[in-house]
Amino acid sequence: MHAIGVDIGGTKIAAGVVDDDGTILAQTRRDTDPDDAASIDAAIADVYRELSASYEVRQVGLAAAGFVASDRARVLFAPNIAWREYPLRDNVAALIGDEDLRIVVENDANAAGWAEFRFGVGRDVQDMVMLTLGTGLGGAIVVDGRLTRGAWGVAAEIGHMRVVPGGHYCGCGHEGCWEQYVSGSALVRDARAAAMTQPERAAGLVALAGGSAQHIDGPLVTRAAQAGDALAVELLAEVGRWVGEGCASVSAVLDPEVFVIGGGVSAAGDLVVAPARKAFDAQLSGRGHRPEAGIVVAAMGNDAGMVGAADLARV
Amino acid sequence: MHAIGVDIGGTKIAAGVVDDDGTILAQTRRDTDPDDAASIDAAIADVYRELSASYEVRQVGLAAAGFVASDRARVLFAPNIAWREYPLRDNVAALIGDEDLRIVVENDANAAGWAEFRFGVGRDVQDMVMLTLGTGLGGAIVVDGRLTRGAWGVAAEIGHMRVVPGGHYCGCGHEGCWEQYVSGSALVRDARAAAMTQPERAAGLVALAGGSAQHIDGPLVTRAAQAGDALAVELLAEVGRWVGEGCASVSAVLDPEVFVIGGGVSAAGDLVVAPARKAFDAQLSGRGHRPEAGIVVAAMGNDAGMVGAADLARV
Amino acid sequence: MHAIGVDIGGTKIAAGVVDDDGTILAQTRRDTDPDDAASIDAAIADVYRELSASYEVRQVGLAAAGFVASDRARVLFAPNIAWREYPLRDNVAALIGDEDLRIVVENDANAAGWAEFRFGVGRDVQDMVMLTLGTGLGGAIVVDGRLTRGAWGVAAEIGHMRVVPGGHYCGCGHEGCWEQYVSGSALVRDARAAAMTQPERAAGLVALAGGSAQHIDGPLVTRAAQAGDALAVELLAEVGRWVGEGCASVSAVLDPEVFVIGGGVSAAGDLVVAPARKAFDAQLSGRGHRPEAGIVVAAMGNDAGMVGAADLARV
Amino acid sequence: MHAIGVDIGGTKIAAGVVDDDGTILAQTRRDTDPDDAASIDAAIADVYRELSASYEVRQVGLAAAGFVASDRARVLFAPNIAWREYPLRDNVAALIGDEDLRIVVENDANAAGWAEFRFGVGRDVQDMVMLTLGTGLGGAIVVDGRLTRGAWGVAAEIGHMRVVPGGHYCGCGHEGCWEQYVSGSALVRDARAAAMTQPERAAGLVALAGGSAQHIDGPLVTRAAQAGDALAVELLAEVGRWVGEGCASVSAVLDPEVFVIGGGVSAAGDLVVAPARKAFDAQLSGRGHRPEAGIVVAAMGNDAGMVGAADLARV
Repeated sequence: MHAIGVDIGGTKIAAGVVDDDGTILAQTRRDTDPDDAASIDAAIADVYRELSASYEVRQVGLAAAGFVASDRARVLFAPNIAWREYPLRDNVAALIGDEDLRIVVENDANAAGWAEFRFGVGRDVQDMVMLTLGTGLGGAIVVDGRLTRGAWGVAAEIGHMRVVPGGHYCGCGHEGCWEQYVSGSALVRDARAAAMTQPERAAGLVALAGGSAQHIDGPLVTRAAQAGDALAVELLAEVGRWVGEGCASVSAVLDPEVFVIGGGVSAAGDLVVAPARKAFDAQLSGRGHRPEAGIVVAAMGNDAGMVGAADLARV
Repeated sequence: MHAIGVDIGGTKIAAGVVDDDGTILAQTRRDTDPDDAASIDAAIADVYRELSASYEVRQVGLAAAGFVASDRARVLFAPNIAWREYPLRDNVAALIGDEDLRIVVENDANAAGWAEFRFGVGRDVQDMVMLTLGTGLGGAIVVDGRLTRGAWGVAAEIGHMRVVPGGHYCGCGHEGCWEQYVSGSALVRDARAAAMTQPERAAGLVALAGGSAQHIDGPLVTRAAQAGDALAVELLAEVGRWVGEGCASVSAVLDPEVFVIGGGVSAAGDLVVAPARKAFDAQLSGRGHRPEAGIVVAAMGNDAGMVGAADLARV
Repeated sequence: MHAIGVDIGGTKIAAGVVDDDGTILAQTRRDTDPDDAASIDAAIADVYRELSASYEVRQVGLAAAGFVASDRARVLFAPNIAWREYPLRDNVAALIGDEDLRIVVENDANAAGWAEFRFGVGRDVQDMVMLTLGTGLGGAIVVDGRLTRGAWGVAAEIGHMRVVPGGHYCGCGHEGCWEQYVSGSALVRDARAAAMTQPERAAGLVALAGGSAQHIDGPLVTRAAQAGDALAVELLAEVGRWVGEGCASVSAVLDPEVFVIGGGVSAAGDLVVAPARKAFDAQLSGRGHRPEAGIVVAAMGNDAGMVGAADLARV
Repeated sequence: MHAIGVDIGGTKIAAGVVDDDGTILAQTRRDTDPDDAASIDAAIADVYRELSASYEVRQVGLAAAGFVASDRARVLFAPNIAWREYPLRDNVAALIGDEDLRIVVENDANAAGWAEFRFGVGRDVQDMVMLTLGTGLGGAIVVDGRLTRGAWGVAAEIGHMRVVPGGHYCGCGHEGCWEQYVSGSALVRDARAAAMTQPERAAGLVALAGGSAQHIDGPLVTRAAQAGDALAVELLAEVGRWVGEGCASVSAVLDPEVFVIGGGVSAAGDLVVAPARKAFDAQLSGRGHRPEAGIVVAAMGNDAGMVGAADLARV
């Protein structure tokens, strides 16, 4: 059966018709204005009409970057889109006007994690945690084959688990959140700091950035590390260490079979994952008396949110 | 329907016939030797025979203080009983010799949490986390109405979530585990340290302990606090603060509706729970954009493990 | 005997003729351009000529906001003025052209601390540590009646003692520096974060700031606290707590008789100092077997740098 | 000129006649009872009589393991000897009965550090910090060529600088003291923990300890590391890392020219010192704008306390 998945970002939406094995049969995009929520509703209805013209579709899953209520209908809050207690499902449903169409809203990181669980590296396990290392640190949790949404729909905001009391301030207003140590932003911040504290070692990175530490970004650090730059390797290893140490804490809570590492930073592959595994081994409580979770790189690409949202609309 | 629950401690077992509304209809006990696993098997069979003489029972739940495999049959490891990869279910089943009897093994903290979820303060919620503050910090997690056991059965070892990098050493060999800040042992350790660093303020506690700081224990601190001893109040509040701050991290991961506080330290009631709520409020990421979990004291007493094990044997 | 003290800030210099009991007999000012080091040299020579026209002066002390070499002649580095390995003393001496004139360069926080030691709240002690809580956290150390400059002149950069591994990033490029917890900037940062995480409690502060958390500054927090705003009181107490805890560490190293708290934040008086004393008491190692240092508010005002520089030119 | 130095340990005293270039001309020992302070007084008088029979001596320096008052006469407190506000100098002077004899009491770590400053690796510098990594972490501070004793004689208790808020409990009753990360005791504690958390990697260490992790001691770890044991190398490197990170904080305060590493752990040489230097480089605030302190192994052996005490008696 076909379902449509829509991944709603800050400035564009991407939608696709997805088969029940996760294959994307057709897709389309629209630019959107994050400050104009009604225009996003309209754009979603529009892509639905375009795609449903050629495919019979009975479910639509909307992946939203925000807190999604447990009714899978409303967005409680979004940091980058003008949604506050916003009835996204009902608004879209009213525009489409088809009472038989099932529409659900899911958190975007949950949708991406679900895609990984159903069709990616998590397809053979029942308990999985996904970490998406992008600007922040998103998460998705699957317990016993079911997506964990929490009492109010906001489970798996795992980047806000505190790992350092009194640590770095987070965008959420609190100190020491995991995402301040494990994200593309953390990587870039650390690289720029190293340019100040270790100028000789950072010379290569700064040169790649055209001479200005302020132009260092995450992909640049990854490229430099892949080319053997010692500082870049160390910076990625430091992110990896925090991944592994945090995963040890998550394992104490959830005992998953696998951690899936996605997002932009995961492009660094073993430069992040190998130090993550080492730190995880060193920190896992009860090691030797329990099997150890794997830590692997995500297999689904940028379409994971769309695919996962479509699939969740069937559940 | 009746089921038998057996709570297996280090030096004794307690067993009871439990109705399907959680009522204990009959119970019995045996002393046991933690170094002689076979004798524990025999004692379990023995209490089964005693109790099943008067009640018809088709399920037996065994609550074991250790890592229980996800097959609900084996104990992978126990810190205080001679169990290593131990086939507890099959051993007991062979002794009883009734093929129609369903026997399951559950972690004891999970069993106690399940009792709280089914019959105690969690009976009206679907997502709950229980914290048992005793010698260590045990936990139980219910997600969407189901007990979370993890991929290998060792989920909810929540006391080993790390809250302070480089923090107090834990019995597990790692540093900074939550249970080193939130448990009866932590309370006692802190009280004894205060006797050294703040002798004037600690004079009351030391006097209650017969003049020796080494004789301070947890209930003594609680009694002193209830009588208004300022240091004792502060020590319990510090435990409460760490409860609340850790719960904020757990909420980021699991978004439960309620945290249930059990174990010996919970006897202090609001002396621990009020500071826990305050710290939780102060640390919860996204507060204002999401409902807040409650933090409440457990309602079931020492029989929770027995009741929960019996009930889980029906599931 | 009269000496001239010159306090060289980023955009202006203040100079005064100072008596040997610390009295300022005359003073003058010039605006300066921090990016034009030569113009600062010229302005210093100019104020010297103006002041020495009416007073006989044989020493000039220059207080510089930067790393001052142990030869008391060069500025190694300044964050806000274009000084890099800069021969400030010799440049000024060449412009003045009087070989009998003694000119010395001192770090500005050291100069302010010295004024406090000689003429302020430290005048009766031999071992003192001053903390200047402004944008950053400056320091001055007096050991056995002598200013501690260190092997290379950069002692007492005490704001860069690390108090939290993995803590807040500092302008110096490192994490967890004391000044990130104890300074006017820290106070403002925490107040703005509280506006996000505790909007109800922060309503008063935000209202005082004209409705925008971004307009909260340090004096506003102090005024609000003095008027009884609970959050503002708590924010200052938190700064005070970190003052006291850090002072306990400094006492382990230096065992001073008094800590002197200066800078803009010290205007909050006991709102900061009382929590500092409480935390110091709670954290001081060996308390009960040693006398305890006092923690007091500085007595000299904004002229401390000028007065101290003049006095140090005599030593 | 000759002086006598006496190093007073818990169970024995060692005394020697020391030349003014630090050479020991003669020495002797006595066993003592730490619970009988008067017998220690008598033993000191006794070794004085023995040594002064052959050498003309006008000064005696007593190195005491405790808090020594700034009058250099009394021991305020000692953890391992029955001294509480104890008039050690006057007691010994009364027993010897020679009014022309100068007797001073010094802290033992200060005495050892002074020997290093006068005759060892610090002889060419004016600003030095010594760290003695033994059971605990002792310290000595020389500022501008003078021993820093502090307002009440208890400066340089540098092992009690806090490096981890909420960190390991210290014997002093506080949490996170530097000596809990940098001392022989820390090394042994970490090795035993690794035997639990990383049993395969720790197999070599445990075998060397005759099969029991409880028999691992510091020299054993050092020998294993020298023989190439990977875990032992890592454990010493971890101690070294904390040495270097703490030294970066101390440099922010004192800007010494050299850190001298003594005590039993220093026998590991570069296995500790190389990681210490690396961590120091990585953490020093203002690096690049200031020279960097050296970190070197102490040159004086176990006689440092005796030699330093004798020399300080001349000052």
